Amino acid sequence: MRVKLIVAYDGTNYNGYQSQVNGIAVQDVLEKAIEDLFGQKIRTLGASRTDTGVHAEGNVAVFDVESRIEPSRIAFALNARLPQDIRILDSSQVADDFHPRFQRTIKTYQYHVLNRKFPDPLSRNTEMHFYYDLNEKAMHEAAQMLIGEHDFASFAAAGYSSKTTVREIYDARVERNGDRVTFTITGNGFLYNMVRIITGTLLEIGAGKYDPGHMQTVLDAKNRKAAGPTAISKGLVLVRIEYPDYKKFTLEK
Amino acid sequence: MRVKLIVAYDGTNYNGYQSQVNGIAVQDVLEKAIEDLFGQKIRTLGASRTDTGVHAEGNVAVFDVESRIEPSRIAFALNARLPQDIRILDSSQVADDFHPRFQRTIKTYQYHVLNRKFPDPLSRNTEMHFYYDLNEKAMHEAAQMLIGEHDFASFAAAGYSSKTTVREIYDARVERNGDRVTFTITGNGFLYNMVRIITGTLLEIGAGKYDPGHMQTVLDAKNRKAAGPTAISKGLVLVRIEYPDYKKFTLEK
Repeated sequence: MRVKLIVAYDGTNYNGYQSQVNGIAVQDVLEKAIEDLFGQKIRTLGASRTDTGVHAEGNVAVFDVESRIEPSRIAFALNARLPQDIRILDSSQVADDFHPRFQRTIKTYQYHVLNRKFPDPLSRNTEMHFYYDLNEKAMHEAAQMLIGEHDFASFAAAGYSSKTTVREIYDARVERNGDRVTFTITGNGFLYNMVRIITGTLLEIGAGKYDPGHMQTVLDAKNRKAAGPTAISKGLVLVRIEYPDYKKFTLEK
Repeated sequence: MRVKLIVAYDGTNYNGYQSQVNGIAVQDVLEKAIEDLFGQKIRTLGASRTDTGVHAEGNVAVFDVESRIEPSRIAFALNARLPQDIRILDSSQVADDFHPRFQRTIKTYQYHVLNRKFPDPLSRNTEMHFYYDLNEKAMHEAAQMLIGEHDFASFAAAGYSSKTTVREIYDARVERNGDRVTFTITGNGFLYNMVRIITGTLLEIGAGKYDPGHMQTVLDAKNRKAAGPTAISKGLVLVRIEYPDYKKFTLEK
């Protein structure tokens, strides 16, 4: 059977999600736990590589295994074998042709900023500290310009190569709750470092360096140099991945 | 001059706030940073010991020093010398007879519970994971019985000795935000482990083991055995300490 996992992790101690030549990735640790549970080496397919230090509440991984364990119990069995900074939030059986990447996906990311004089030691690994007052309304206004289908070439890391830099953004919002400013963005795909570069641009607008309309100028430039800096990784969380065509993969009970 | 610090810390890696014979306490690390800054050993007075694993957003420490550093800049200078899990959020000069403990204080604590199937790796050090559905309305109703002046003997750790177990609670509330249930309590003082034992009792009520009225029964018993278990330390945060008579210590500018 093919098993789908919802994977949450604190990315602080990992060299990203996907296995690399160097360093320990979340995928390495997950595959070790799977091997320990099923007694055999099993390769997993992840939905989203995330960079070093980036976190997830809802990355997706799939793997194939012959087993009599009830699919929903696999999450419990894996959590008993995983370190506390990785948790499987759900496990379920999916159709054998379900692929976590090669189908329509809707991804939601959040970027967390603490906007006050000093950092909070309790959330130091999961938010960026920003000293200067942020105008979250200006940031929200700028974020609205991202909604729709656009060429996001300005927001792709230099040297990034992809067939196309066009992506569709369904929703983007900036909200403040006390000292905390959160940027949430949902789209059908994101270029390498795209959310972090958008965040860096939003922070320049929030700090008053540019008006909200600057976001449109950056979009139109189609040039990485027009955008702001890449915001540090630790403020970013992959919140969830939805599969709008997933119905056709659902197994009959 | 006497300097007052607001001290925030992640208690995970410390043997509590106050210096002990064994282990490293937050106070040890703070005094090391103060020695490094001023070039001399200086003893600090802390407002609240907190247990191993308990966190703070607003503990208070004071110390005396002769220095030409602007008091408000001391926070910046100390943060440059402290590890990331301890931050000074504010520094100011206070009157020479300001004592962080021997005056009227109002303390506020919060206890954080994640109420869902699996823990969240992103907040694993700062909340208790509770699997079974919690009825936060029943918990809130029970918490109201704590408000006022009562003998809290049932909620003091066994073997605890104090002149009196009477304390006054000004506010107590239980709120849910999605999967997160937070208990906030404000009072003029707390017995050893009192907030954690109240939380353990509230969780039994929230899980349906007892009706809300059980809290009154426990209060009336004046016996530790009547209350629930001591909730684990990592969900507890000392949020702030207020000094209602502090005006008389305020220095004229």
